[in-house]
Amino acid sequence: KMSHKIINVTVRDVRFPTSLEQHGSDAMVRKFVQQHFAVCMYCTFHTDPDYSTAYVVIDTDCGLKGFGFTFTLGKGTEIVVCAVEALAGLVVGKFLQDIVSDFRGFYRLLTSDGQMRWLGPEKGVIHLATAAVLNAVWDLWARAEGKPLWKLLVDMDPKQIVSCIDFRYITDALTEEEALDILMKAQDGKQHREDLMLKEGYPAYTTSCAWLGYSDQLLKQLCTDALKSGWTKFKVKVGADLEDDIRRCRLIRQMIGPSNTLMIDANQRWDVAEAISWVSSLAEFKPLWIEEPTSPDDILGHAAISKCHSRVMFKQFLQASALQFVQIDSCRLGSVNENLAVLLMAHKFQVPVCPHAGGVGLCELVQHLILFDYICVSGSLSNRMCEYVDHLHEHFTSPVVIHNAHYMPPKEPGYSCEMLESSVQRHQYPDGDVWKMIINK
Amino acid sequence: KMSHKIINVTVRDVRFPTSLEQHGSDAMVRKFVQQHFAVCMYCTFHTDPDYSTAYVVIDTDCGLKGFGFTFTLGKGTEIVVCAVEALAGLVVGKFLQDIVSDFRGFYRLLTSDGQMRWLGPEKGVIHLATAAVLNAVWDLWARAEGKPLWKLLVDMDPKQIVSCIDFRYITDALTEEEALDILMKAQDGKQHREDLMLKEGYPAYTTSCAWLGYSDQLLKQLCTDALKSGWTKFKVKVGADLEDDIRRCRLIRQMIGPSNTLMIDANQRWDVAEAISWVSSLAEFKPLWIEEPTSPDDILGHAAISKCHSRVMFKQFLQASALQFVQIDSCRLGSVNENLAVLLMAHKFQVPVCPHAGGVGLCELVQHLILFDYICVSGSLSNRMCEYVDHLHEHFTSPVVIHNAHYMPPKEPGYSCEMLESSVQRHQYPDGDVWKMIINK
Repeated sequence: KMSHKIINVTVRDVRFPTSLEQHGSDAMVRKFVQQHFAVCMYCTFHTDPDYSTAYVVIDTDCGLKGFGFTFTLGKGTEIVVCAVEALAGLVVGKFLQDIVSDFRGFYRLLTSDGQMRWLGPEKGVIHLATAAVLNAVWDLWARAEGKPLWKLLVDMDPKQIVSCIDFRYITDALTEEEALDILMKAQDGKQHREDLMLKEGYPAYTTSCAWLGYSDQLLKQLCTDALKSGWTKFKVKVGADLEDDIRRCRLIRQMIGPSNTLMIDANQRWDVAEAISWVSSLAEFKPLWIEEPTSPDDILGHAAISKCHSRVMFKQFLQASALQFVQIDSCRLGSVNENLAVLLMAHKFQVPVCPHAGGVGLCELVQHLILFDYICVSGSLSNRMCEYVDHLHEHFTSPVVIHNAHYMPPKEPGYSCEMLESSVQRHQYPDGDVWKMIINK
Repeated sequence: KMSHKIINVTVRDVRFPTSLEQHGSDAMVRKFVQQHFAVCMYCTFHTDPDYSTAYVVIDTDCGLKGFGFTFTLGKGTEIVVCAVEALAGLVVGKFLQDIVSDFRGFYRLLTSDGQMRWLGPEKGVIHLATAAVLNAVWDLWARAEGKPLWKLLVDMDPKQIVSCIDFRYITDALTEEEALDILMKAQDGKQHREDLMLKEGYPAYTTSCAWLGYSDQLLKQLCTDALKSGWTKFKVKVGADLEDDIRRCRLIRQMIGPSNTLMIDANQRWDVAEAISWVSSLAEFKPLWIEEPTSPDDILGHAAISKCHSRVMFKQFLQASALQFVQIDSCRLGSVNENLAVLLMAHKFQVPVCPHAGGVGLCELVQHLILFDYICVSGSLSNRMCEYVDHLHEHFTSPVVIHNAHYMPPKEPGYSCEMLESSVQRHQYPDGDVWKMIINK
């Protein structure tokens, strides 16, 4: 049943005009938007993002499709689209069976092409494009098996999981044998953990309550609503104005009380010395972590938690003991393959994984990875939680399901990457109806 | 005279079919090619490269033009072209005077665009495109001043040099004040060093003698010729086959004697443990350095010398004392601006800079930077030399001039980026005559 031949790879530039929502001139509209959308998720640095995807569809000769994407912030998505088109030539004509029986080889084919490797390697545009393509391949595989991706991984033989990982450059931190050993040991209690996840879901935290510049009134209302819905863990965006940060952190801590969890996220705003001084001023609010205080490439700047762009960067953060939490990303790392490597390294170094999500579809994808982490790798929920942002889920055919501040495991086959075709068409840039209207204004 | 308004930015995909030269089926042709071209410069990993550029021309309202490019290996150059087009919108309409009077601001405009920053930041495709655009701006500036770029830099006030550098993320290693202090101190003896350079040139080493797989006979001939031409420093490519590496290193060391210099370059071939064992086997040939033993992102893997992709990576290599030599690159870093930051950090940490060159045009560009380093920053030639590869210079309007294994300072205004228009047209991909012939075969 696995002899699906890939006959076509298409990629589209799909953008949501979130930067306009943020700047609606009508104050009422703006207030509505602030309450309902997390439009300034990356806003200390990434002002006015248009949440976007380079959206990939793989067609096979038997009619089965695979969907995948990477997340971007608007401008430049066309560059990622161009990169996906360059990679597509390496994918078309392949059989799914051949890909998954040597997935490490296929990963290397995409990341180590003799000429294109120069454009990365394994970083920036070309790595985002790799993630989009491989996400679609994983989606296709899970659909071919009739399972949601997390379940495909959970049921997979440890040897096959390890065969999906490229260990080049990380063997000084994690060998293939160690990875296999971790997975074998975690077989114990697996069924119990899977049952628990199906019943209760995976714990989430919310980033929707405390964006920069929110008024006291809005903060109070959002916090009250969130507490009523069962949220116990809250992330606050900081870094633009220290007084505003102190005010919002103080208010949030008052609202949620001492036993709930507070995190802060600086979105790469600071130099190292600046970060230390700023964070000291916020220490009284007892944040669990400081996210991205400085450049994501700065291992020696001692980030407490960081979104890295590759397993080689994660390896060093772990080796340098510069991370207290690992934040994986379903669209920035080289798809499931590279995330598997990072989950296993994090376990070896005994650092909890708390995925990055939000944007467009990042929640949909990363829930699969963190379910696998709990059931088959870490076996622990201690200090672990998955980010959640209530935004743009309505464009997906199988949006995330949150119950009582927990991610409920998806049941549909695939990697939850598929978007509604109508949403894709309306938001295609620059020819979709949504953009035609905006551009013609 | 500086009010040049930028009215147009064009970018072309220019590729040289070097991968075909490497594989000529005629043994005589192949031998000729091996003797005359360094076609497998990146060959342990980057097999069969087609040396290429995303080639940028800036037009101004007064007719003056600026030329710039970044270097690539063939496939995927169209992605960099696409990225340059995305950046062009930030450049067209600007006045040269405004750019150079706040060059740090302009650098940030290109590297920190709210939406495009996600595609890097400052790495991969988008950073290569940034380099191409900024190289053209620097070329334009030097032409407007009627000076070769190195001389523009050498004559520049230290304050203005510092104002071209983005210190974000590096202030823990180098502050603006420290940078200024370094430049002020080096004013002493500047004229003497400039005169010396004009008379004798900057010392070079050659990478053209000892590619992988060369026969004993060919190695001997190439070494003999190079020694006759005054070369005293030689780099050997290694990493594919240990026996072949030992044979070639032994022969080269015999040919050049104990007092000449030997370096080895592994082109990211190894894991950390593998690197240590392999290099131990080559230690008897007393290499001065081991280049890129492992992933270029691996700071803790202790590369002896490495081509980094940004000033943040270089900073950490220096802080971690993981570099004994700094290898700058004119097309991988964010143009002159970011190279200035790296040169100054290298000086502070007292690590010699030995530029990477070769490819297409990298020698032409980097000679300007290393001349500035000697005259205005390091003031030293100790353990310093600039790579040289005798390849593709004939396509430039002002090719490098080598005398007695030294780079002679360029005299023409600009950054030596301009290619012959006939070469550009013939090698445009896929429509130039050279590619039409190859594709139609």
